[in-house]
Amino acid sequence: MKTLAVDMDGVLADVYSLFVKMHSEEFGYDVTLEDSHGLAESAAFPGIYKYVNSKGFFRNVPLIEGCQECIVKLNEKYKLFIVSAATEFPSSLQDKQSWLNDHFPFITWRQMVFCGSKEIIKADIMIDDHFKNLDHFKGHTILFTQQHNISTHPGRHIRVQSWNEIGKLLL
Amino acid sequence: MKTLAVDMDGVLADVYSLFVKMHSEEFGYDVTLEDSHGLAESAAFPGIYKYVNSKGFFRNVPLIEGCQECIVKLNEKYKLFIVSAATEFPSSLQDKQSWLNDHFPFITWRQMVFCGSKEIIKADIMIDDHFKNLDHFKGHTILFTQQHNISTHPGRHIRVQSWNEIGKLLL
Repeated sequence: MKTLAVDMDGVLADVYSLFVKMHSEEFGYDVTLEDSHGLAESAAFPGIYKYVNSKGFFRNVPLIEGCQECIVKLNEKYKLFIVSAATEFPSSLQDKQSWLNDHFPFITWRQMVFCGSKEIIKADIMIDDHFKNLDHFKGHTILFTQQHNISTHPGRHIRVQSWNEIGKLLL
Repeated sequence: MKTLAVDMDGVLADVYSLFVKMHSEEFGYDVTLEDSHGLAESAAFPGIYKYVNSKGFFRNVPLIEGCQECIVKLNEKYKLFIVSAATEFPSSLQDKQSWLNDHFPFITWRQMVFCGSKEIIKADIMIDDHFKNLDHFKGHTILFTQQHNISTHPGRHIRVQSWNEIGKLLL
């Protein structure tokens, strides 16, 4: 059984939509897709560090469309791990685990990894929206499209736009 | 630079002495080294799940002798990661990170990993007190002696009794 490492933020958790909402509440206007096209998240959302450090941010983030149904099936076919770069925001750790328990109750604590650098992760396949995580990974790499990576050539990584595409690729 | 994965509980953090203290407070007598020789921690300390789930347990655990000085030096020679099986106790996550920040302020959030199973960890060397973590690890394995592993033959793992021995081996 192959091992599959799946990222949280920007892959399972729709942090982007929450950034848009919080930015709008703070500045009184929406950041559009055009505004954020190809920009690092911190450039598109100047308040981002405040947002992710705010109480409950990672507890209340919405799901990315289609991920629940696909993860159910992937969890049967692969040795699945959810791998989140979380230690930059220590107050997020317990919230992130609770969020996983809420939305993916079949994923056990044994399958969760909260880390800083993902250099230490060994798996056959990694799904992530950040090049910094995929670039030094030795296995197959799937780049989940987000505004911040949309204008960069995926290189050796397979770019996908949706969980529907991931399902077609891996199931 | 080789990658070194170091466990927390039973290797950096002296959970054992805290178990003895809490057991004594609960039952009115000390568990001696003879009592716990070769026993799983849950067999030696019937209240263990209550202890580790109690507020502040992982925040207040003492250091194992000699680990700070050695970790300072190892952090210069190796790409060091602290890898703790922590997701079984979600309320421990932030406490564990705070404890690392207190005692090892030179270790950054990028070097911390809180996981369930350690199957997903890739490194050159792993130091751990549990066979379940070392046995499926592909690199060099160092078994840190604790009462629960003391009567089991180390097999392919190198057994060490102290941080002094680790320093001699790795520095």
